[in-house]
Amino acid sequence: MSSTKFKKDKEIIADYETQVKEIRNQLVEQFKCLEQQSESRIQLLQDLQEFFRRKAEIELEYSRSLDKLAERFSSKIRSSREHQQFKKDQHLLSSVNCWYLVLNQTRRESRDHATLSDIYTNNVIVRLAQISEDVIRLFKKSKDIGIQMHEELVKVTNELYTVMKTYHMYHTESISAESKLKDAEKQEEKQFSKSGDLNVNLLRHEDRQPRRSSVRKIEKMKEKRQAKYSENKLKCTKARNDYLLNLAATNAVVAKYYIHDVSDMIDCCDLGYHASSTFRISVCRVQFRSRHEDWIS
Amino acid sequence: MSSTKFKKDKEIIADYETQVKEIRNQLVEQFKCLEQQSESRIQLLQDLQEFFRRKAEIELEYSRSLDKLAERFSSKIRSSREHQQFKKDQHLLSSVNCWYLVLNQTRRESRDHATLSDIYTNNVIVRLAQISEDVIRLFKKSKDIGIQMHEELVKVTNELYTVMKTYHMYHTESISAESKLKDAEKQEEKQFSKSGDLNVNLLRHEDRQPRRSSVRKIEKMKEKRQAKYSENKLKCTKARNDYLLNLAATNAVVAKYYIHDVSDMIDCCDLGYHASSTFRISVCRVQFRSRHEDWIS
Repeated sequence: MSSTKFKKDKEIIADYETQVKEIRNQLVEQFKCLEQQSESRIQLLQDLQEFFRRKAEIELEYSRSLDKLAERFSSKIRSSREHQQFKKDQHLLSSVNCWYLVLNQTRRESRDHATLSDIYTNNVIVRLAQISEDVIRLFKKSKDIGIQMHEELVKVTNELYTVMKTYHMYHTESISAESKLKDAEKQEEKQFSKSGDLNVNLLRHEDRQPRRSSVRKIEKMKEKRQAKYSENKLKCTKARNDYLLNLAATNAVVAKYYIHDVSDMIDCCDLGYHASSTFRISVCRVQFRSRHEDWIS
Repeated sequence: MSSTKFKKDKEIIADYETQVKEIRNQLVEQFKCLEQQSESRIQLLQDLQEFFRRKAEIELEYSRSLDKLAERFSSKIRSSREHQQFKKDQHLLSSVNCWYLVLNQTRRESRDHATLSDIYTNNVIVRLAQISEDVIRLFKKSKDIGIQMHEELVKVTNELYTVMKTYHMYHTESISAESKLKDAEKQEEKQFSKSGDLNVNLLRHEDRQPRRSSVRKIEKMKEKRQAKYSENKLKCTKARNDYLLNLAATNAVVAKYYIHDVSDMIDCCDLGYHASSTFRISVCRVQFRSRHEDWIS
């Protein structure tokens, strides 16, 4: 029975080790996820920055082309105005006015796209870089907090492991002490029944002395074993209480970690990221839209 | 008196010639103006065509740059999606959605500017070329009509010139015939007063015969001159009537030309030009604006 009990203990410890291993794997996996998420965010932000850098270039190029075009025809008008006096009241012609309107419109478009390019370069890209930095900072801080929490978890589980092992050890010892005590009791019983037989059948003086000393010996042993058993039983009970307290504490820590801490960590990362990114981007959008509406009207 | 009269006639003809010359200068000037106006219109239309040709190029360039940019990042997303399985549910992230929105917006801008370029190339420029052709046709037709009107004006003034000269000639002749007749009457009077003295003081037969014949001679001359004068007077009156009729007709033609024909010609040119140009350009503008409003909404 003791060997099966021992086997059971071993199984429990193996089970426990498996569970702890699984938890550690999960922690590693969680960090990996966090890292991947941050990486994909940074990658996205880098892509956006690169995109807006190139878009700013395109807008500037477009703006310059339009400006050059308008300037080319405006200077043509100026020079023809200087050289030809008869064109003095040309501005009264509607088609000439239309032409001026087209040129002014082109210049305005040029200005608008230059402003857009400027907004991309000096607002959007700078802001995206800031968000990238925020994401890196958020990730580092989250990882630090995560590491602390993991350490606590590991510490608690290690303690539980030690306490559990101690309990199992004392439990085993207590059981062996109990069985030894039972052996002693059996021996005593045997001795008593022997001495009863002797009292009834044979009352040999020379025989009596050694028998009495052996009874005393057995009793002494029994008392010793009884004391040992009591001591072990007490230790075992203490270890059991320790184990139960630690078990409850560990379960509380694990539950707290999985139910609150992990989701807090994710929320903190996400919330920080969204608070950092969405507000400014929507501001830029409003600016952009208002410019365009202005442009149309 | 006759010489001053002649001088006056000469002055009148010179005046008339100056006036006709002025009118001819005006006609030449009018054609020059019409030509300059058409030329400046054609120049303007050519400028507009060149402008829109270049603008179409700029729009196409801009459109291509935007498309290239969007395509570059879209293909990057596609390749990363194929290689990394863990990014499967990335489309659930709001920042990724934002990124897709930006790329789609860029593609749409690219399409819009390509359409704009297409409108410039296939509608605006073609239409401007048609307007140019219309202007040339309008100018040619107006010039043809103008030439006809000018020819009529020149013809009428030439006729008036001839009639006026004829009248002046007959008038001069009539005046000289009148003075000759008056000379004859004076001579007759002298003769009569001489013969009266002779009747009273000296009645010499031998003297009477030749004196009677000279009286007859004078009378004959007087009659002849009277006939000549009457004939000239009639011719002169006829020429005067002709002249007055022609003068009225010429004035009517000149007034018609200056008051109605010139302004009709200008109106015809302008109206044709504006009818040809404004309608289509406004249509293009509406298309353009609606596209842009569509783009913003």
